[in-house]
Amino acid sequence: MVLYFIGLGLADEKDVTVKGKEAIESSEFVYLEAYTSILMISKERLEEYYDKEFILTDREYVESNCDEMLERARDNVVSFCVVGDPFGATTHTDLFIRCKEMGVETKVIHNASIINAMGITGLQLYRFGEIISIPFFTENWRPYSFAEKIEHNLARGLHTLCLLDIKVKEPTEESLCMKVKEYMPPRFMSCKTAVEQLIEAAKENGYEQYNEESKCFGLARVGADDNKIVSGLLKDFLDIDMGAPLHSFIICGELHPVEEEMYEYYQPS
Amino acid sequence: MVLYFIGLGLADEKDVTVKGKEAIESSEFVYLEAYTSILMISKERLEEYYDKEFILTDREYVESNCDEMLERARDNVVSFCVVGDPFGATTHTDLFIRCKEMGVETKVIHNASIINAMGITGLQLYRFGEIISIPFFTENWRPYSFAEKIEHNLARGLHTLCLLDIKVKEPTEESLCMKVKEYMPPRFMSCKTAVEQLIEAAKENGYEQYNEESKCFGLARVGADDNKIVSGLLKDFLDIDMGAPLHSFIICGELHPVEEEMYEYYQPS
Repeated sequence: MVLYFIGLGLADEKDVTVKGKEAIESSEFVYLEAYTSILMISKERLEEYYDKEFILTDREYVESNCDEMLERARDNVVSFCVVGDPFGATTHTDLFIRCKEMGVETKVIHNASIINAMGITGLQLYRFGEIISIPFFTENWRPYSFAEKIEHNLARGLHTLCLLDIKVKEPTEESLCMKVKEYMPPRFMSCKTAVEQLIEAAKENGYEQYNEESKCFGLARVGADDNKIVSGLLKDFLDIDMGAPLHSFIICGELHPVEEEMYEYYQPS
Repeated sequence: MVLYFIGLGLADEKDVTVKGKEAIESSEFVYLEAYTSILMISKERLEEYYDKEFILTDREYVESNCDEMLERARDNVVSFCVVGDPFGATTHTDLFIRCKEMGVETKVIHNASIINAMGITGLQLYRFGEIISIPFFTENWRPYSFAEKIEHNLARGLHTLCLLDIKVKEPTEESLCMKVKEYMPPRFMSCKTAVEQLIEAAKENGYEQYNEESKCFGLARVGADDNKIVSGLLKDFLDIDMGAPLHSFIICGELHPVEEEMYEYYQPS
């Protein structure tokens, strides 16, 4: 029959599109991908909204264990729900290809993701360079490669969207080799942590292109009623509490006049 | 009261989010912006769907004549509907700022736009560089500056999304100085025209970084059931009919293995 790839959007159960809602309602089985991002609501609230079971899938399931879902999609209408837009993460293209191999029809229902919703800052989407990801540093693993990408963007006057690390259902180091894994509590990088790491990386690079005085935007809970968008210098964000996750961060390139106006608009009062 | 900025999404009346639909239903006045992009349906179909009048606004209205809308939003719930996500185009940030100045509350309801929906190609969104716009060349105006941006992206192995020109409600040259303007029929650039112009610009630049053999994607009607996504070499698109608008185009940088697989997936059969 068909496997729907459905974007759930950014914040809650009402961010799904009408088309997506109808697809979920028409489905015999509904899967929920919940490891590359999170909605700001629980699975239970989704289940209540639809009066339907949502089968939670983790990275392991989607990457190597999704036969059950695909087999079901052979003879049933099945929805695979993803927070944001369905094609933010690699593994879903794998699924797409496997559907074709198995002769299962696919239909994609798009939605907002941070990659376009960040337009709410007033920064123009066509003035962004390469997107970077900032991973949680560990004691022995402190990769600074993102700084080089920021520098390249800035050299061309372009803004940089920084996606901040999310750790959901990560096995503990101790359980990595065990059959039954134990999982760490979920962690979501804050703008503050991102900025600490950005400053460390900039120092390492001799503060070449960006520094503590660079103009930035912090974004939290975009799409939710209690969203928070703040402009400020990089160092300011060491002291700004952006509240609950998810956070994203932007390092500004050259600001055009309208962008400058929006930068002022979002200054903390 | 409040001015809602509502993204209508990509294709038809059911691409609005549930939240957006409820906002429109609760509004005393609903405005429709229809000059930076188009839905694949008519205003009448939207009006039927909501049983409500949609007041069409053009560029002139939004940029210099929107006092009526803002005044109404002082005391009423008003929706300003935009195809895609509300913050694709500059002028809406102007509106945002004017609302603040007038003490009108704003609420943003996000949606998909081509900038994230292009993920359906399987190309990874964090591997894109600066987005470019390709304008219709005229006899005397053939700007090649987009080629230089593509070259910069390619030098770093990054993909380039090309937004293709849309001309909606453009005054005719003859009527430019007249009080009552006459308008040209709407024009939407096809992938074929974009490729002709891309090749001309590449020739001009001595085929430095991209050429007729560069790998590309053509996208048409993304988000609609009859969408068409095709991979091929730049020159192939001179002969590929992508059908009705809207079209977008992507010039690939380095393809990672999963991306290569999706490139094969979308080869015309």
